[in-house]
Amino acid sequence: MANVLVIHGPNLNLLGEREKEIYGEADLVQINSEIKKKALGLGHQIEAFQSNDEGEIVTQIQKAAENYKAIIINPAAFTHYSIAIRDAVAAIKIPVIEVHLSNIYAREEFRQKSIISAVASGVISGFGSQSYLLALEAVNSLIE
Amino acid sequence: MANVLVIHGPNLNLLGEREKEIYGEADLVQINSEIKKKALGLGHQIEAFQSNDEGEIVTQIQKAAENYKAIIINPAAFTHYSIAIRDAVAAIKIPVIEVHLSNIYAREEFRQKSIISAVASGVISGFGSQSYLLALEAVNSLIE
Amino acid sequence: MANVLVIHGPNLNLLGEREKEIYGEADLVQINSEIKKKALGLGHQIEAFQSNDEGEIVTQIQKAAENYKAIIINPAAFTHYSIAIRDAVAAIKIPVIEVHLSNIYAREEFRQKSIISAVASGVISGFGSQSYLLALEAVNSLIE
Amino acid sequence: MANVLVIHGPNLNLLGEREKEIYGEADLVQINSEIKKKALGLGHQIEAFQSNDEGEIVTQIQKAAENYKAIIINPAAFTHYSIAIRDAVAAIKIPVIEVHLSNIYAREEFRQKSIISAVASGVISGFGSQSYLLALEAVNSLIE
Amino acid sequence: MANVLVIHGPNLNLLGEREKEIYGEADLVQINSEIKKKALGLGHQIEAFQSNDEGEIVTQIQKAAENYKAIIINPAAFTHYSIAIRDAVAAIKIPVIEVHLSNIYAREEFRQKSIISAVASGVISGFGSQSYLLALEAVNSLIE
Amino acid sequence: MANVLVIHGPNLNLLGEREKEIYGEADLVQINSEIKKKALGLGHQIEAFQSNDEGEIVTQIQKAAENYKAIIINPAAFTHYSIAIRDAVAAIKIPVIEVHLSNIYAREEFRQKSIISAVASGVISGFGSQSYLLALEAVNSLIE
Amino acid sequence: MANVLVIHGPNLNLLGEREKEIYGEADLVQINSEIKKKALGLGHQIEAFQSNDEGEIVTQIQKAAENYKAIIINPAAFTHYSIAIRDAVAAIKIPVIEVHLSNIYAREEFRQKSIISAVASGVISGFGSQSYLLALEAVNSLIE
Amino acid sequence: MANVLVIHGPNLNLLGEREKEIYGEADLVQINSEIKKKALGLGHQIEAFQSNDEGEIVTQIQKAAENYKAIIINPAAFTHYSIAIRDAVAAIKIPVIEVHLSNIYAREEFRQKSIISAVASGVISGFGSQSYLLALEAVNSLIE
Amino acid sequence: MANVLVIHGPNLNLLGEREKEIYGEADLVQINSEIKKKALGLGHQIEAFQSNDEGEIVTQIQKAAENYKAIIINPAAFTHYSIAIRDAVAAIKIPVIEVHLSNIYAREEFRQKSIISAVASGVISGFGSQSYLLALEAVNSLIE
Amino acid sequence: MANVLVIHGPNLNLLGEREKEIYGEADLVQINSEIKKKALGLGHQIEAFQSNDEGEIVTQIQKAAENYKAIIINPAAFTHYSIAIRDAVAAIKIPVIEVHLSNIYAREEFRQKSIISAVASGVISGFGSQSYLLALEAVNSLIE
Amino acid sequence: MANVLVIHGPNLNLLGEREKEIYGEADLVQINSEIKKKALGLGHQIEAFQSNDEGEIVTQIQKAAENYKAIIINPAAFTHYSIAIRDAVAAIKIPVIEVHLSNIYAREEFRQKSIISAVASGVISGFGSQSYLLALEAVNSLIE
Amino acid sequence: MANVLVIHGPNLNLLGEREKEIYGEADLVQINSEIKKKALGLGHQIEAFQSNDEGEIVTQIQKAAENYKAIIINPAAFTHYSIAIRDAVAAIKIPVIEVHLSNIYAREEFRQKSIISAVASGVISGFGSQSYLLALEAVNSLIE
Repeated sequence: MANVLVIHGPNLNLLGEREKEIYGEADLVQINSEIKKKALGLGHQIEAFQSNDEGEIVTQIQKAAENYKAIIINPAAFTHYSIAIRDAVAAIKIPVIEVHLSNIYAREEFRQKSIISAVASGVISGFGSQSYLLALEAVNSLIE
Repeated sequence: MANVLVIHGPNLNLLGEREKEIYGEADLVQINSEIKKKALGLGHQIEAFQSNDEGEIVTQIQKAAENYKAIIINPAAFTHYSIAIRDAVAAIKIPVIEVHLSNIYAREEFRQKSIISAVASGVISGFGSQSYLLALEAVNSLIE
Repeated sequence: MANVLVIHGPNLNLLGEREKEIYGEADLVQINSEIKKKALGLGHQIEAFQSNDEGEIVTQIQKAAENYKAIIINPAAFTHYSIAIRDAVAAIKIPVIEVHLSNIYAREEFRQKSIISAVASGVISGFGSQSYLLALEAVNSLIE
Repeated sequence: MANVLVIHGPNLNLLGEREKEIYGEADLVQINSEIKKKALGLGHQIEAFQSNDEGEIVTQIQKAAENYKAIIINPAAFTHYSIAIRDAVAAIKIPVIEVHLSNIYAREEFRQKSIISAVASGVISGFGSQSYLLALEAVNSLIE
Repeated sequence: MANVLVIHGPNLNLLGEREKEIYGEADLVQINSEIKKKALGLGHQIEAFQSNDEGEIVTQIQKAAENYKAIIINPAAFTHYSIAIRDAVAAIKIPVIEVHLSNIYAREEFRQKSIISAVASGVISGFGSQSYLLALEAVNSLIE
Repeated sequence: MANVLVIHGPNLNLLGEREKEIYGEADLVQINSEIKKKALGLGHQIEAFQSNDEGEIVTQIQKAAENYKAIIINPAAFTHYSIAIRDAVAAIKIPVIEVHLSNIYAREEFRQKSIISAVASGVISGFGSQSYLLALEAVNSLIE
Repeated sequence: MANVLVIHGPNLNLLGEREKEIYGEADLVQINSEIKKKALGLGHQIEAFQSNDEGEIVTQIQKAAENYKAIIINPAAFTHYSIAIRDAVAAIKIPVIEVHLSNIYAREEFRQKSIISAVASGVISGFGSQSYLLALEAVNSLIE
Repeated sequence: MANVLVIHGPNLNLLGEREKEIYGEADLVQINSEIKKKALGLGHQIEAFQSNDEGEIVTQIQKAAENYKAIIINPAAFTHYSIAIRDAVAAIKIPVIEVHLSNIYAREEFRQKSIISAVASGVISGFGSQSYLLALEAVNSLIE
Repeated sequence: MANVLVIHGPNLNLLGEREKEIYGEADLVQINSEIKKKALGLGHQIEAFQSNDEGEIVTQIQKAAENYKAIIINPAAFTHYSIAIRDAVAAIKIPVIEVHLSNIYAREEFRQKSIISAVASGVISGFGSQSYLLALEAVNSLIE
Repeated sequence: MANVLVIHGPNLNLLGEREKEIYGEADLVQINSEIKKKALGLGHQIEAFQSNDEGEIVTQIQKAAENYKAIIINPAAFTHYSIAIRDAVAAIKIPVIEVHLSNIYAREEFRQKSIISAVASGVISGFGSQSYLLALEAVNSLIE
Repeated sequence: MANVLVIHGPNLNLLGEREKEIYGEADLVQINSEIKKKALGLGHQIEAFQSNDEGEIVTQIQKAAENYKAIIINPAAFTHYSIAIRDAVAAIKIPVIEVHLSNIYAREEFRQKSIISAVASGVISGFGSQSYLLALEAVNSLIE
Repeated sequence: MANVLVIHGPNLNLLGEREKEIYGEADLVQINSEIKKKALGLGHQIEAFQSNDEGEIVTQIQKAAENYKAIIINPAAFTHYSIAIRDAVAAIKIPVIEVHLSNIYAREEFRQKSIISAVASGVISGFGSQSYLLALEAVNSLIE
């Protein structure tokens, strides 16, 4: 049974309150519960945490390599400038899947470029909370 | 039962022969058969076609709106310059999911920008033939 | 009596269905009929065709030089990247007028630059189907 | 009967003397007289003025909103940098048609971008003095 | 008691008529009257003028140095290209405060850069007519 | 009585020691005490904190929405790259005023662009510690 | 005896009529006959075809890999934007030589960059129809 | 005996007061008197005027063609953006010499590019008021 | 005897595990021990710490000014975007030497620009762990 | 019998030693001997020299115009920045053919642009030492 | 009596032969003789030399500081990229005047930027051989 | 005992005279003597030469490969544009260390990019003549 770490980047704790026309109605508790349910069905066990702190996310990614078989990360704002997170993703050996709730390629110019994608295993963007669920599906083929 | 059109862009008919370190070992027949099998399991019926011709792809997208509930498209080379395909995608009302076998964000500079993503429902990139299967999963949530 | 070829570029066959807030309510049949009526009044005879295929449009422009006195072209998406159409326009000796339904200079960044304008006789943009009718007026002064 | 204001931007008072290979043989008096004749035929009454002064043009555009039903403007050099004229055009509610004698898209790099087009009703470029006459035709459909 | 010159740039005479969702409901007379009232409270005496003419604004800035202790300027469209106004501001020795009704940094790309800010004493942007009142407050600390 | 949170970004704890020709003589204690005095006069109650940590600032902005009526933030270095802070500002509903001690538009190229201004209520830059006091004045009109 | 496929891109069927000062006097029939004569002398057998259609050229390149030992291609307008042709060239294993009649590096800015050269075996540009003949010479050393 | 018009652009009326480390100690009266003295020696008769108004300078350039044999212009701030002045210079047939007091190529980035030089007869920059005197020398060879 | 603070930026705790072809075989413990040995020989006493957290590094730099005579910093990923660290370096008065294990100028485009170098005393890049030792040598000449 | 000068640019004297995967196994003596043999067959007589010195190459190009009928030049590193060599090539009247051993368009970004091609008669790139031999073939058609 | 060194850059030895429509009819001997004659009249004694070699020009500039009171240099092609010459000019203390025969601002894009102007005393461009004579005039005011 | 070649680029022979605030007080003789003394201590024997000539430096680098175990080069102005020197450095197999007296990353924009660093073993910048001495230290670890 695979262990998967789910990382939610800055401001994602505001989901369900903030700009719902972009991010949808569900709050983070609901989304995590959807993810857990799906994971169960696929035989994964997930751990989820959210942080507004780049350094903490870097440290979690580093540690994940020992305890998890894969990471699903929504880097949120850090997507576009955190080379530190990019370097952490590149440094570990387990697969890392980048997800986004909204279609970042349809938003402001500066949000259309992810500095992390180049070192991720793959990218899923634009399906709302469904993006996380698809990433769970993808985990299976990547860790076999 | 949903009908889904799968469009493979230029040079994808060479899969399995061409640059296997990037695109994998499977040829297009195998990939289509994988997709069909998965679709069956999800209750979708798929139609797949490949074309090297931009105009033909535009026309198929236009027609799809009448006969299909969703499109899964791998625009291949057209991803980066075909505004005609972008306009066709924007013009129709059924959801269109953009998929890529390789992680386009990890390749040459000019392949890192998709001109189509901004009008797609969502984007899945970098999971090999698995990208198509994830797109099929995504279809359900989009057409409900 | 002058013969004028009217060329409608990709996706213009969807007029009246697609993004009406940008392109207006009229479909292509109505627009062609407006153009024909106006042409009659000005003593022109027009032929109109629409294509989603760049190669076909290039070929039609090449042939037009023998049978028509002028071309009115709405290159649609091809406006922004088809150097092949630009070269065809530059190669023939009859006047070519570029028209656009919407004001392309008020749209997305990538639509504000026409690669074809530099070799056209003139450009008319932003008057809806009226753009074609103004082009017909312009033909007279250009072919005298 | 519609009243239309025709505005000629800087240096257009030199028409007929200056760079005739670009701007043609006719001087401004002749062009204004052509415009007036055409306007009469269409049932418009035009007022024409020329100015080398950006501030004066801004002020005339502002005032036109009260006395005219439409403006035809050839902003000449101001096309490329006068945000003040752009703002005046955007601020008034009557339609403003931008015209150019030469095909600005076929000239120096810095002349290929109009800062005003984005807020104009439409643009007509490259038909010599005919550009003004086509604009008069266009006025009818815009003010109905 | 300090004398302060308030300069309103091009098209600001249209306030209250033009694009109210951006600039607010108040017209220039009301705003000037608000400013005067506030000035009185602070012990300043203000003179206000509006002009659509760059040259006139340059000349007024030059003259202000003799008669006023500070300038509050909303350069409007000139913000983005008038090096002449920039040079006038840089040339005089009294403090010049740049104000904007709207938040220019949240508008079109070309409006996000002020060519004048670099030589102003300070910048206040985005508080509606309140921007002028804050500038009056700021004058005190600058001219002491 | 309004509650206002004042946030000082990284390195502002060095005020009074560091580059005094740019930032002035006053240290942060003095500035906070000036702000508090002014706030008292205006009937506001302020809370001030300084942090070198982006994540902590994001979290404080998120929490402020519950306890304060407005935020005054000097994001210092984060002004130019912290999309996480931008997103936090955009996500909450109370007004956020961006202030700078120095005139950032008169400094190095990379300091002339604020990534936060576009989502702030307004911006005040260049008045030294007075910038904070003006922001306090501005709060009143924004929260009414 | 080697079989070589010669591909002429869009608008090259107009050679001899179009812009002779750039492309020379010879028409495509004459050029093909020159190429055939030269090929005979070198012991090659050539097949030549011209197309205005990107998709058709992609398909021909794909098929050539089975029947020919080398391709000589003048991509004409497609040189500058057809990533689909680039991908086809990169995908096949036989050598592909890119030729141009005119010196593309001495023409408009947008013609100075070939998107295909990076995957071609070599490039010959600027020798008129002689460019094809030199390419035939080059074939020998490449296919040995 | 040649008649030469000397045009001083915006803010040059402040010479001797403004930024003396850049522009020198002499005021405009002194400089004009130097120029007149030098002109006398060379057998020229000069007329000098200064304006802060772009439109007025355009108009003076247009008129100069009738009454003067050459123009010496220091366009000051207008050097960098006034296409209207550039067009006026290009439109007239008498030689126009562009002069600058300071070495504009050693100043801010935006001052290093003159939009007018391309249509001037020649450029003299960086010799203080001596720049005007050298231009007077140059006039002789240009009008012979 | 000089006290020197050595700061290792994000992900450097993974040295010896991560991308050894770029960063070498030694882990951070070994490198710190090499540095300490070298320092001893030169009469310096060093303190070393590593952090993935930008805010913590900023704070340490600020404090170092009181307890250390120099800082040797390998900012790792922060090299390229942390203006906060740059500001901290610029704010303190002791010398700061920037070091890199790999030659950053030979890596990805975005790693070739250091935002910190401009305010560092000097830069040493590309000598593996030797870079730190050279920096120790350099400290002597800088703090004398 | 034609005389042809062959110029080898900087570092080409290292051929056969340096980066053989890019430039091939042959050293310059071998290449010159191949060229001479081929020249003999075509009835040309060649002179070959290599220089690391830009000034010397400029001087040789200037002199060649008197003694040779054509130049074949591989400018090596100078390809990308020597405007002096470009000017020498443009100044003489005999044809100059630019050759490259490697396909420069497939190498680093800065090697993909030749500053010399625009003034050369033609360009041959990517055929190894064969590039020189093809250039010899081309000479015939150029000097007739 | 002042000693002035005149430096002619690469390819200027071809004057009178090369592209006369740009550089005029006079050859370098005639120009030097004109310069000497003028110098005599002004009480200067000149030394002139021409070189195609950047290193030699750098060395001559360095030495000139001992034997000459000023340098007049036409850097020709080196104008646009020789930072070595720029550094030599910046390093010496005597005035250096940059001259150009043609108006470089009216030529190709890459010729419109001089890398040397920023460190020259002044620039004179576009007056043919007269440019050198004006520079001689300028010398007087600079060396007093 | 290692032999090390020290190369000083253009204008470095002026050290001690030129811009001392940037390059320090020591002249080249003093610096060479410092280097020799340090080398002796480390068991290296150095040879030093200075040249203003790019071609000569290229040739010396090529030859060094036979007689020296390492090169220390301060390319001065050539740092920023000499691809010829870059290619020479890349072509030889002994280590090459790039040094700079000043911190080039803190100077003009065009001096912040070294075209040579990407092929050097390492870079040391900003420690005055100490930069050379540190490079000598570095040599040991590189040639072992």
